[in-house]
Amino acid sequence: MIDIEQLKQGNRRALAKAITLVESKLERHRIEAQQLLETLLPDTGKSLRIGISGIPGVGKSTFIEAFGKYIIGLGKKVAVLAVDPSSPVRGGSILGDKTRMEELSRDPNAYIRPSPSEGALGGVAQKTRETMLLCEAAGYDVILVETVGVGQSEYEVAAMVDFFLVLMLPNAGDELQGIKRGIMELADALVINKADGESVNLAARTQQHYQNAFHLIRHGDFWTPRVETCSALNKAGINSVWDMIASYQKLAEACGAFEGKRAKQNAQWMKKLIHQLLEQRLKENPQVQKRMGELHQAVVENTTTPLLAAKTIVDLL
Amino acid sequence: MIDIEQLKQGNRRALAKAITLVESKLERHRIEAQQLLETLLPDTGKSLRIGISGIPGVGKSTFIEAFGKYIIGLGKKVAVLAVDPSSPVRGGSILGDKTRMEELSRDPNAYIRPSPSEGALGGVAQKTRETMLLCEAAGYDVILVETVGVGQSEYEVAAMVDFFLVLMLPNAGDELQGIKRGIMELADALVINKADGESVNLAARTQQHYQNAFHLIRHGDFWTPRVETCSALNKAGINSVWDMIASYQKLAEACGAFEGKRAKQNAQWMKKLIHQLLEQRLKENPQVQKRMGELHQAVVENTTTPLLAAKTIVDLL
Repeated sequence: MIDIEQLKQGNRRALAKAITLVESKLERHRIEAQQLLETLLPDTGKSLRIGISGIPGVGKSTFIEAFGKYIIGLGKKVAVLAVDPSSPVRGGSILGDKTRMEELSRDPNAYIRPSPSEGALGGVAQKTRETMLLCEAAGYDVILVETVGVGQSEYEVAAMVDFFLVLMLPNAGDELQGIKRGIMELADALVINKADGESVNLAARTQQHYQNAFHLIRHGDFWTPRVETCSALNKAGINSVWDMIASYQKLAEACGAFEGKRAKQNAQWMKKLIHQLLEQRLKENPQVQKRMGELHQAVVENTTTPLLAAKTIVDLL
Repeated sequence: MIDIEQLKQGNRRALAKAITLVESKLERHRIEAQQLLETLLPDTGKSLRIGISGIPGVGKSTFIEAFGKYIIGLGKKVAVLAVDPSSPVRGGSILGDKTRMEELSRDPNAYIRPSPSEGALGGVAQKTRETMLLCEAAGYDVILVETVGVGQSEYEVAAMVDFFLVLMLPNAGDELQGIKRGIMELADALVINKADGESVNLAARTQQHYQNAFHLIRHGDFWTPRVETCSALNKAGINSVWDMIASYQKLAEACGAFEGKRAKQNAQWMKKLIHQLLEQRLKENPQVQKRMGELHQAVVENTTTPLLAAKTIVDLL
């Protein structure tokens, strides 16, 4: 049984038990978890949700450690969650691993939780969304959701946070090809880490390059994505990153975009779950299972039209 | 009754009648249309499908007229279709309007069809896909599908063509902000039109800018999007655009990517239609209609979880 009052007072054991419930694969736990979340909903939503992405080697752990400590220094509580779709089915994920963020993990104002190893409906992202709500109910002021750029994980994290930040390495010119198509669409900011030692000038040139690239793209009404540099190792530039996000929040709240984005995220999340529940029904339907492969093949080979194939499938439900 | 043999021999009246059938809103016509399409499927798929997008004022009609005439000069037959989601519910769309392409519309080797004014399942894009198949069965070698960049239309067109081309205006530097987020993800090429008179140098600088921007982005295996310039008005550079697309086709066919892309498009099209048919069922269900608004509101206002709301909806089916 979860002690809701303890959880709301920020008790770490109560929070951990609630997260374990949310991550459980047992059907009765899932029902219990939804009831718990519904009870806690009035206490959620008060944090600032920040997504942090970046390829391995970019220094994500070092950045999150420095950034988290900085935020705690401002008198806030920080939770670090992770979405890692590449984690093995059994056992924990490396992401969010406490051993990577030693200082932060020892801080009483920080809570670090590795990526759920798998998720049923809605996948790993669904579990992380739910864990985020639990952390908010437990009084965490800032939630950092980290991810590696695997598959759809960046899109999933961007769809659950207020601000999406992508960490980059300093390398300019032709070396810049590493940026994924679509990432510039998601990012509210790029932060070029490891801007230290001999890389300071290179980082500045890289910053200029990405700023130019962002200028090629049409943006939303109130925010043009920014490009910052920092050295997480030397804890330099960390304050600028926070100030940038704080100014984003201020601007977004002033024009109603902050609440508007969350309302849209919630509605889309529901829509996605409806879609997934319907897909699940299709998958579990033995008649559909029997015909699907054959109809898929017929469509690919152009022996039937996509509409006729789709109607056949849906009529089997 | 559609004369299938006449259609396959390229008879324009038979083709026009078939397209009218495909665009009809009557349920019995829709069934008849699907049967017709299924019969014709073995005769489809032999064209090169090219999507052409660009904002109003970029010179799309002039480009398509010059490009279409050039292709006809190579001994091929060209069909011009359009996807215009902004067209009024009743009456034809301006896109694909024959009066815009006088020369081309008089050419016996060209067939121009404006955007369907609306579509049921799958929307305007579904009708255009089906019309494309009819044109292929009627022996057209190249299908040009044009669109304005409204809503999802660029994504829809990119999902039905072999090559997606975006027309741009010559303006460099800070003036470049007009490019939509996501468009660089879709485009196989940008073509800077109106590279004539005083704009020749500006067009070259713009070309350089976009080439740099493309270099910032990671691409597929065999093709890096190209940036060309042309003057549709002076019929200059039109041949280079065609040569570029022809070389794309050659490369894509050599590595299997050409057929692979079409198979993927067909499979995704079917998946999308299954999804839309299920959504249609939800919409037509009186119980769902009754509860949906209220549950949507509850999710947005955080009084229930997205998962509980989604389950409630799906259980009503």
